[in-house]
Amino acid sequence: MAEVRVFAGTGGQRFARAMCADLDVPLSPITIQRFANDCLQVQLLENCRERDVYLVQSVVRPAQESLMELLLMIDAAKGASAARITAVMPHFAYARSDKKDAPRISLGGRLVADLLQTAGVDRILTMTLHAPQVHAFFRVPTDQLNALRELAAYFLPGDLSKATVVSPDLGNAKSASAFAKMLGVPVAAAAKERFDGDRVEITSLIGDVTGRDIIVLDDEIANGSTIIAVLDLLREHGARSVRIACTHGIFANDAVHRIAADPDVVEIVTTDTVPTAGLLSHDKLTVISVAPAFAEAVRRIHSGESVSALFDPTHV
Amino acid sequence: MAEVRVFAGTGGQRFARAMCADLDVPLSPITIQRFANDCLQVQLLENCRERDVYLVQSVVRPAQESLMELLLMIDAAKGASAARITAVMPHFAYARSDKKDAPRISLGGRLVADLLQTAGVDRILTMTLHAPQVHAFFRVPTDQLNALRELAAYFLPGDLSKATVVSPDLGNAKSASAFAKMLGVPVAAAAKERFDGDRVEITSLIGDVTGRDIIVLDDEIANGSTIIAVLDLLREHGARSVRIACTHGIFANDAVHRIAADPDVVEIVTTDTVPTAGLLSHDKLTVISVAPAFAEAVRRIHSGESVSALFDPTHV
Amino acid sequence: MAEVRVFAGTGGQRFARAMCADLDVPLSPITIQRFANDCLQVQLLENCRERDVYLVQSVVRPAQESLMELLLMIDAAKGASAARITAVMPHFAYARSDKKDAPRISLGGRLVADLLQTAGVDRILTMTLHAPQVHAFFRVPTDQLNALRELAAYFLPGDLSKATVVSPDLGNAKSASAFAKMLGVPVAAAAKERFDGDRVEITSLIGDVTGRDIIVLDDEIANGSTIIAVLDLLREHGARSVRIACTHGIFANDAVHRIAADPDVVEIVTTDTVPTAGLLSHDKLTVISVAPAFAEAVRRIHSGESVSALFDPTHV
Amino acid sequence: MAEVRVFAGTGGQRFARAMCADLDVPLSPITIQRFANDCLQVQLLENCRERDVYLVQSVVRPAQESLMELLLMIDAAKGASAARITAVMPHFAYARSDKKDAPRISLGGRLVADLLQTAGVDRILTMTLHAPQVHAFFRVPTDQLNALRELAAYFLPGDLSKATVVSPDLGNAKSASAFAKMLGVPVAAAAKERFDGDRVEITSLIGDVTGRDIIVLDDEIANGSTIIAVLDLLREHGARSVRIACTHGIFANDAVHRIAADPDVVEIVTTDTVPTAGLLSHDKLTVISVAPAFAEAVRRIHSGESVSALFDPTHV
Amino acid sequence: MAEVRVFAGTGGQRFARAMCADLDVPLSPITIQRFANDCLQVQLLENCRERDVYLVQSVVRPAQESLMELLLMIDAAKGASAARITAVMPHFAYARSDKKDAPRISLGGRLVADLLQTAGVDRILTMTLHAPQVHAFFRVPTDQLNALRELAAYFLPGDLSKATVVSPDLGNAKSASAFAKMLGVPVAAAAKERFDGDRVEITSLIGDVTGRDIIVLDDEIANGSTIIAVLDLLREHGARSVRIACTHGIFANDAVHRIAADPDVVEIVTTDTVPTAGLLSHDKLTVISVAPAFAEAVRRIHSGESVSALFDPTHV
Amino acid sequence: MAEVRVFAGTGGQRFARAMCADLDVPLSPITIQRFANDCLQVQLLENCRERDVYLVQSVVRPAQESLMELLLMIDAAKGASAARITAVMPHFAYARSDKKDAPRISLGGRLVADLLQTAGVDRILTMTLHAPQVHAFFRVPTDQLNALRELAAYFLPGDLSKATVVSPDLGNAKSASAFAKMLGVPVAAAAKERFDGDRVEITSLIGDVTGRDIIVLDDEIANGSTIIAVLDLLREHGARSVRIACTHGIFANDAVHRIAADPDVVEIVTTDTVPTAGLLSHDKLTVISVAPAFAEAVRRIHSGESVSALFDPTHV
Repeated sequence: MAEVRVFAGTGGQRFARAMCADLDVPLSPITIQRFANDCLQVQLLENCRERDVYLVQSVVRPAQESLMELLLMIDAAKGASAARITAVMPHFAYARSDKKDAPRISLGGRLVADLLQTAGVDRILTMTLHAPQVHAFFRVPTDQLNALRELAAYFLPGDLSKATVVSPDLGNAKSASAFAKMLGVPVAAAAKERFDGDRVEITSLIGDVTGRDIIVLDDEIANGSTIIAVLDLLREHGARSVRIACTHGIFANDAVHRIAADPDVVEIVTTDTVPTAGLLSHDKLTVISVAPAFAEAVRRIHSGESVSALFDPTHV
Repeated sequence: MAEVRVFAGTGGQRFARAMCADLDVPLSPITIQRFANDCLQVQLLENCRERDVYLVQSVVRPAQESLMELLLMIDAAKGASAARITAVMPHFAYARSDKKDAPRISLGGRLVADLLQTAGVDRILTMTLHAPQVHAFFRVPTDQLNALRELAAYFLPGDLSKATVVSPDLGNAKSASAFAKMLGVPVAAAAKERFDGDRVEITSLIGDVTGRDIIVLDDEIANGSTIIAVLDLLREHGARSVRIACTHGIFANDAVHRIAADPDVVEIVTTDTVPTAGLLSHDKLTVISVAPAFAEAVRRIHSGESVSALFDPTHV
Repeated sequence: MAEVRVFAGTGGQRFARAMCADLDVPLSPITIQRFANDCLQVQLLENCRERDVYLVQSVVRPAQESLMELLLMIDAAKGASAARITAVMPHFAYARSDKKDAPRISLGGRLVADLLQTAGVDRILTMTLHAPQVHAFFRVPTDQLNALRELAAYFLPGDLSKATVVSPDLGNAKSASAFAKMLGVPVAAAAKERFDGDRVEITSLIGDVTGRDIIVLDDEIANGSTIIAVLDLLREHGARSVRIACTHGIFANDAVHRIAADPDVVEIVTTDTVPTAGLLSHDKLTVISVAPAFAEAVRRIHSGESVSALFDPTHV
Repeated sequence: MAEVRVFAGTGGQRFARAMCADLDVPLSPITIQRFANDCLQVQLLENCRERDVYLVQSVVRPAQESLMELLLMIDAAKGASAARITAVMPHFAYARSDKKDAPRISLGGRLVADLLQTAGVDRILTMTLHAPQVHAFFRVPTDQLNALRELAAYFLPGDLSKATVVSPDLGNAKSASAFAKMLGVPVAAAAKERFDGDRVEITSLIGDVTGRDIIVLDDEIANGSTIIAVLDLLREHGARSVRIACTHGIFANDAVHRIAADPDVVEIVTTDTVPTAGLLSHDKLTVISVAPAFAEAVRRIHSGESVSALFDPTHV
Repeated sequence: MAEVRVFAGTGGQRFARAMCADLDVPLSPITIQRFANDCLQVQLLENCRERDVYLVQSVVRPAQESLMELLLMIDAAKGASAARITAVMPHFAYARSDKKDAPRISLGGRLVADLLQTAGVDRILTMTLHAPQVHAFFRVPTDQLNALRELAAYFLPGDLSKATVVSPDLGNAKSASAFAKMLGVPVAAAAKERFDGDRVEITSLIGDVTGRDIIVLDDEIANGSTIIAVLDLLREHGARSVRIACTHGIFANDAVHRIAADPDVVEIVTTDTVPTAGLLSHDKLTVISVAPAFAEAVRRIHSGESVSALFDPTHV
Repeated sequence: MAEVRVFAGTGGQRFARAMCADLDVPLSPITIQRFANDCLQVQLLENCRERDVYLVQSVVRPAQESLMELLLMIDAAKGASAARITAVMPHFAYARSDKKDAPRISLGGRLVADLLQTAGVDRILTMTLHAPQVHAFFRVPTDQLNALRELAAYFLPGDLSKATVVSPDLGNAKSASAFAKMLGVPVAAAAKERFDGDRVEITSLIGDVTGRDIIVLDDEIANGSTIIAVLDLLREHGARSVRIACTHGIFANDAVHRIAADPDVVEIVTTDTVPTAGLLSHDKLTVISVAPAFAEAVRRIHSGESVSALFDPTHV
């Protein structure tokens, strides 16, 4: 396989620069032109022929712009005779549109997976899709990383003697359990049932949290309503302190400030999969980079080594 | 749309006869020949040209035979110029192979969805897929029924004054909650985490079950290990009696007898989506038919009426 | 073919209402939900089964939002078992991304055509694509209307004794010639060569314009730089007055005011294919509706009559 | 092309071990799990990324299990980023379902070819398909070996002074003629017409067999009815002795014993393309291995050398 | 299904007129334009929207022109919104390119089947494909007629008291046997082996022909070398007279005259599937029309009746 | 990428030999057999496995034969396991069938692009497609060369002191302008409107030609009617001499002689993209070869270097 070529869309520039630094390959330049009629046109500014091309873009706010940029980048790379095109999507927000829970609704997650293939993508590299079944929406080979190793590395140096990992819902309990094992601490979980879009009701809490230093682990924080409900519940049960860890920090509607306003919250830790996370600033917020993990995955994909070791289920 | 034509595979004969009786259309004959080399050949024995063809077959033990029969039936109907081919799968067992939870495993659910489309299916009619995301594995229009109405109708005449619906895991809690609402009783849920294939550990029980007449609702009972673990848990928490309701009664490894052997178990209720269910015989077992629900769905599909009313999320 | 069902995206509501009024069918309601992570979800609020479904949306600013809405609408209609799905795109802005005039650029026009088909569209109804070859980007049956009949009907009642139709470039000369024939007046054309994106140079003017009342006919006005260059040229050649007629009035960057500021310009006439056109207000601007033409096309598509009579090349 | 990786399904293990021994590459381990609901799941236990992957499985009794295992293996290899996936099918039993000789029957041969491609196979390596047209059912590159060289090598050391090769039907006469040429002996053929599935009528015998030592050559022996009819015919015509040679030894319904029971039959020779052949035991039966021929083909496919020399039509 | 529309390519005009007369529908006009650069363009001159369109063209000499005309007709009908497009190919000459009997050769039969589907064909109606497996090259529904009924009707009024049907090779023996049964006479067959393209060697004759009035039945006569070899063989065996019947009369290289020159040949009977057959003139030649059979098939396809009765294998 | 393999169809032999000479690789032999029924069969006579295969064929008169040869060559190469198949089409005549300018016509350009992909082509190498949008008809990577560099190199040594480049229509003006820049001379253009197929009317001439030595540059000369009309116009405007340069010299209907008969015409220069051009002989005709440019493109495609430098838009 010929040399690696990395390009990034508007929302992937910062992440791609970090990833390329780790990979020690240059981030190739790209032009994204917007015409007077609002249509976009992508031009890749380095030869792609028979190259192993990686296109970095989180499909996230502005979601439609991000997606179209990525589709056009894939189209341009394909037309330019790339040997293989990998879409690197640190966050793939459309993964949440994964089920038909009302009549005549669109299934955006599956649709976008199909659109990426129509544009010509050969493989996908992403992190922590909302549900494990979403992996199967793609018929091209797909590597799904997770950030547990990075998040654990952040927390391990601290005092974990009274720490407990809490999953805000049961769907995430498997990850929380793996994370707790990495930290050597117990795990608990809230059993949430969500009705409608906005109202969230937490029905129960499984496991002991009284007097504990809680680390809430979630895959994604959007507008934060789930987390805020969990905070109430933890307070009721007498948790001593709360730290929040999440992979995808979308933080819509000023969610960082709303969560951080809770006096029990000591710290919010997220990663840089969502480009806006790096732009947020708050005393309690820490953003750690998973770009090195993606760099390592790209290195392995390029050289044909196993990527599953990076997300080994026996450790996770 | 021209007239309806219904054919059934080996494992769908009984179900299709019931469905056809309700629809008041004949079940058309079919020949499934097995050659000396073990290969199958299907012949449909009624003209299918421009007909609205329904092929009834649960993809269930013997799963590979059932699947191949169905694929060959679709192939035969397509070659015979059917106007539209609907695969009616009361149970689609491969739906459980829906996630990549180990490196280099097959994703049977998505693969079989693709195989059905390659064979030429135009639409799918099924009941209660294991995870809601599996619906999106199909790119052809898919109607997914559920059996809650039929199960509720069975229980409603009884004494429900002290009844509580229990979901054996959190993944099924939404259905259990809808079912409880239909019965006018409270809901509770076990919070299970399953490790490996065989060992099952129930970590907690959310909601009150002491002194209650429990109706455990599950989507599918395979070898019954989950149910048996729930029974232990319910006993510990002082439940008064237990009835089991499930949509897909696979009951492998003599599961009915193993479950029924528990003295707390008063009754096991399942439906006829799995053809072997109808062949089982046990004092405590009741099999109710969902064939009329499928007949109603076929009627609506044929005449272009909404099927979503049959599984209206505002009632379910 | 069963009854007609019409839905519209955000940018097609106004146009669809006009079209439905003419068709005398209701515009069916739709919900477009935006989640906290900026992803969209469409729900069609009327049964689509076996219906002849028309989805109205101009793919125009905000282009990416418009396109994604349309793709999700198609996906929802397909999942809801529509008998046939026609995308009605009064304006399809991506048609301009139709050639590879630089290395490694995307070909948005062809890509979007392919994406629409992936989503499940069965046919396309649109008006005046930028180049005639773009029609072939679609492999599904495509009807391309034009607005010459409507524009001619607007101008015919006036005094055309000294009128001349002018095409601002040679590419549009065939349409201008057809339009002039409809009005019974002579035709002239500017021979433009465009360098780079912004700078426009008009090299010549073919035909006589001195002392004439000019009607400049263009297919699309985006930021208006071509028209403004033509105005200079017409002034140099002693035109008496100028009226501007165009099908697709994008009018980016306040183009209406910049063009209208020219004292020679008496009037600007456009159609309602671009939704924002109807929101603009200027003394010199007139917006005429082509919704009745689309309604007539829908009527013919539904009943299987020829649509080509609507854009008969012997008259156009 | 990166290194070779070989996996085998249940029915291909023995053959693959022989092939790998000849190739001097290890047979990589695989897990085939059967769930309680009878569904299968495949896990490949070696890294496949960018490897040249060969999946060995005869699609033969149990045919449906064999096929599904192979489809799941292909799916797993594709998801695991194999560079190229070759299905190695020493015997492909569905090849016989190749014609529409009754209305509304399935065409299993073509269907299975399409299913393999849907699962993601890149090429096929097989031996002696029932009819030469079946090759064209595959749109992926397909190499079809034959066993004539191996069978000839077995017979050549013996006394062939009075030997004659007999084809049991005219369809196989070309191969028989090539085989006779390899042995340097004359050829004869029975002209069979088969009515219904079971009854076989031999109408004539072309060529001289009186007093000859016959070698009957067939491509496949299933339940042996054709061979038994030929034996009667040879006896009538005064053949001195009969040996049977066939490529695919299915031997259903105890066919070896039924054929061997004929006192004229001196010997039955087959190959190991059908896994059960190696398990049969009878004094008159000899099973020779074509695994080395497959190993040689794999070697050539991997290194890009011509495979056609292995089945050179000028010698065959 | 809406009304029938029939168009014909250059080589299908005569056949289509006969078929339309029988169907009592008009043959719609078509323009096939040849540009100065030799490229073709088709225009269908009647509205095709939602019509049930039949395109009549034998793919036969000039084979490449015929094929391209047909592909362009399909493309035009698809672009013109036909409801269903059936290619009516009375003769499909590329069916003979059906096997890989030399390394690196093209498989024209399968390729052309795929090209027709790419162009947009929905179904195929043809007669007597060279090998039964070719049917499976098409994935769209395909009806294959045969001409035995028509040929039998021609011979039945004559004196058949000493007639015997002879198949010129074993591959055609099944049809010959069915034909003989229709005539109530015995059957015989030549066992031919063909070496290279030109040289043909007949090895044997099965059945009695001495003193018989022979009717040789073949599916196709191209340059007639097979028939001429059979004639020699029949003479050697003392046949009394010979008549030749074939479905597809290609008669290349003056084959009619070369065959008719044999004094034993009393008569040559063929059908009009090959357009040039109708242009040949020879005392011994009779061309009977199968257009009524195709008309009947079109009638049944259009109305959704079974076509298999027309070629019922229990009679054929 | 493995070694290069070049084959050529009937119409590409001469061109391919020139190209191979420049590339210093042998032109591999091929057999194109025509059967008695006029069907073609291709056999590639060198091993293609894992080779980088180039198939040279201009799709030009006899257009249907050329196209079918190319499709069969692609099919044969694919079946023979080529690593990559590039169709090298120095001229692609069907590119002119690119727009729907009449109802119910075929769109041959797009159809043929799709047929090439169905046959299995991986990429396209061609020169100067009629309209720039035709590039997008192909979804496989496509390199489009032009001959301006070669034509300029031919004219540059001469006396260009009074030379002016003239484009015969405005569609070609951009190329003419680039060509004039290469020669360092001014540019002019005729503004043509073509009515019907035959009659051509030139409406105007932009730029000064009086007393100039004209070089008319066109992309393609078919029957020459456009050029002859331009000659009249140039004479009227007092041009001193005229030379004709075109890329694709089809020269139907004796066009060379008809153009050369004009006494003003000093010279006609074309390239060898159309195979018949090399066979023409006229004092005023010069044919220059672009085979070296294609050889250079093949070299770059094979080694993964940029091809766009060969047609750099900043120079063209």
